[in-house]
Amino acid sequence: MPSALVLLADGTEEMEFTITYDTLVRAGVKTLSAYVPTISFGTRTVSPPVAKGSRGINIMPDSYLEASVCGPDQHDLLVIPGGAIGAATISTNPVVQQLIRDYIKSGKYVGMICAGSLAAKMSDLPRQSLTSHPSVRAELEPEFEYSEEPVVVSGNLVTSRGPGTAFPFALTLVELLCGKEKREEVATPMIFPTGTPW
Amino acid sequence: MPSALVLLADGTEEMEFTITYDTLVRAGVKTLSAYVPTISFGTRTVSPPVAKGSRGINIMPDSYLEASVCGPDQHDLLVIPGGAIGAATISTNPVVQQLIRDYIKSGKYVGMICAGSLAAKMSDLPRQSLTSHPSVRAELEPEFEYSEEPVVVSGNLVTSRGPGTAFPFALTLVELLCGKEKREEVATPMIFPTGTPW
Repeated sequence: MPSALVLLADGTEEMEFTITYDTLVRAGVKTLSAYVPTISFGTRTVSPPVAKGSRGINIMPDSYLEASVCGPDQHDLLVIPGGAIGAATISTNPVVQQLIRDYIKSGKYVGMICAGSLAAKMSDLPRQSLTSHPSVRAELEPEFEYSEEPVVVSGNLVTSRGPGTAFPFALTLVELLCGKEKREEVATPMIFPTGTPW
Repeated sequence: MPSALVLLADGTEEMEFTITYDTLVRAGVKTLSAYVPTISFGTRTVSPPVAKGSRGINIMPDSYLEASVCGPDQHDLLVIPGGAIGAATISTNPVVQQLIRDYIKSGKYVGMICAGSLAAKMSDLPRQSLTSHPSVRAELEPEFEYSEEPVVVSGNLVTSRGPGTAFPFALTLVELLCGKEKREEVATPMIFPTGTPW
């Protein structure tokens, strides 16, 4: 059974987090959320029991950012959701930056959506095709081949644009981990309106 | 500022809950979630600190199902999300059933999505046009004019089908509460792919 780690912080866009996590679970992917702390005193970080999303929904993480449960030896996919403040916290965290490089190096997938794509820059990923929310385009454009596609797959890096592309982003991750048939099996009972382009 | 109450229970479909709540907040709607309890001992209900969604995401409610914060004197909209087990808990709760009738009688909106539409039957709403997740169609078809439209607006009752219709459902609620311009203002930065039919 494939396994995924979805990061979560105060200010994470809760639709992007929830759509990705829920869709992966529907596909049978063992999915774990890990809280990335906002506040630290020296080596001690303060982890509240819940993360407050960008629009105020309080979500309790399954776990915390600990090497023993977060590494590429544990999961096949690492996901960085958006939300300006959440993505800033996640993408500037050195443990996360190292995790991203380790996942890519181990041949595992890394998904980034919305402002979460800033993590590609912050973790020094090489120049490649990528997309993001338009609000952070200017920060990414000099260092990547910027695309306006809803979902961009570049080797093991999968990027996307915002809450409105979260379903095709999550379904693309399902397809990469579990195959095209599973993607169809998961999408059908969600009842997308006729004409939905994914 | 319009105000909305979104119900939440163990087994609520977390995408439907989160997309609706988040989209309403983006529109400037004052939004409150209230936990509908699963377990009661006589008159005493046991309310855990978080609701476990249908795919395992733990969400902390803003409030509980108390008359002082849940009535149609407090809010312009009541939302019943889906998720088979969550919708069963919510739609069979007599306090919720009375709230639904009170909201409709007061000229306030009631939104139901997915299996949440069962609440229309359980609260004895009159025969009218309605939709739901296909999995509960057979239970609703004898008593309502069943539609397969992604979103059905029938007077003050707004119904929808599943996670795949949660965005047009939420945006329709925004339009009813805040107008067409606000709907556009909220939808644009979500970056729906070109060709998305809402």
